[in-house]
Amino acid sequence: MKKFAVVLSGNGVFDGSEIHEAVLSMYEISKQGASYAVFAPDMKQVHVVNHRNGEEMDEQRNVLTEAARIARGKIEPLSNFDPVAFDALLFPGGFGAAKNLSSFAFDGPDCKVHPEVEKAIKGMHDAGKPIAALCIAPVLLAKVLGDVKVSIGQDEETAGALAKMGATHAKTNHGEVAIDEENKLFTTPCYMLDADIAQIGVGAENIVRAVLRVL
Amino acid sequence: MKKFAVVLSGNGVFDGSEIHEAVLSMYEISKQGASYAVFAPDMKQVHVVNHRNGEEMDEQRNVLTEAARIARGKIEPLSNFDPVAFDALLFPGGFGAAKNLSSFAFDGPDCKVHPEVEKAIKGMHDAGKPIAALCIAPVLLAKVLGDVKVSIGQDEETAGALAKMGATHAKTNHGEVAIDEENKLFTTPCYMLDADIAQIGVGAENIVRAVLRVL
Repeated sequence: MKKFAVVLSGNGVFDGSEIHEAVLSMYEISKQGASYAVFAPDMKQVHVVNHRNGEEMDEQRNVLTEAARIARGKIEPLSNFDPVAFDALLFPGGFGAAKNLSSFAFDGPDCKVHPEVEKAIKGMHDAGKPIAALCIAPVLLAKVLGDVKVSIGQDEETAGALAKMGATHAKTNHGEVAIDEENKLFTTPCYMLDADIAQIGVGAENIVRAVLRVL
Repeated sequence: MKKFAVVLSGNGVFDGSEIHEAVLSMYEISKQGASYAVFAPDMKQVHVVNHRNGEEMDEQRNVLTEAARIARGKIEPLSNFDPVAFDALLFPGGFGAAKNLSSFAFDGPDCKVHPEVEKAIKGMHDAGKPIAALCIAPVLLAKVLGDVKVSIGQDEETAGALAKMGATHAKTNHGEVAIDEENKLFTTPCYMLDADIAQIGVGAENIVRAVLRVL
């Protein structure tokens, strides 16, 4: 059975992992006959956002502890991740990828990537193993790997930032997967487009299928 | 287009809505050509549980505000719910149904049901409209409606509590939907059984299909 590592960044689109993308990715991995383990960095969230009104809350939360809600408690610190133990790596989107896993939401192309995220991406890439990223998470691949082909959908500002990081942007529409065959990178736009949850399901289904095809 | 109201109880299996059941229900509603609106009561969570270790945290969170994370901000207070505006009502599971929407986790068959939840269930039932409940959420239907047929899977203690509330328990296995045709109630066990996320998807698919069949 092929095994994915799913890296979460919290629990909620505005300050963590986008929940639909995370759950539907896990669902498709399981439905298509593979298995997964869930990881997240053990760190303070950059901030906590009230998802009713978008305002920052005067609270502190931990990325790993909140991500454990999506994982039903079955989660490990990202520091435990070992590329040898997995066939593929997958990053759902959500602002957490651009706020906690990296500083892209604040610094754009000059962002920093969390060292454990960088290590995980480089470890899988060096081992010639596939990496999938949904929504805004492809910025992590561009920042760490540089000259790669990824997609965040249609947004020109984000595509411009990807270019500044040395990457090539491929335009995609709902459910389409951009594939960098040489680097075994798979990216799909999900909620970077104005999508409904059924379209997120198509994206998750297609990206998991595309990854399994090369395993 | 048929319209579901989905009632959440927070965001996380141990103190709120079970996230996989909530997301996969919303996904199946959308995938099968219907639409949904999301509601939750505007109330303090009974408690906040650290989902890494199961321990209570010294924090206060609001059910509606946390549920907004699953709904991506598109959520209304349950006090706004009007049965006239919907074709069906659906409750995902998670301990939130037994802690916030009712006190079943603490009081068993002597539990109280949140007045807005009771009003929503009675309003739909009186209008002859279908109600679906996953996992532990069928206890809400038993407590409010009494002499009905529901399923929470195989657990004998919970089935005994349902009997004390006047309900009949139908044993079900993964993905099976118990149907009370007279009362238009649809229930499926999901994580009340030892299930994986693909099996939750089957349960969500089947319960949404069964409801749409009577609409």
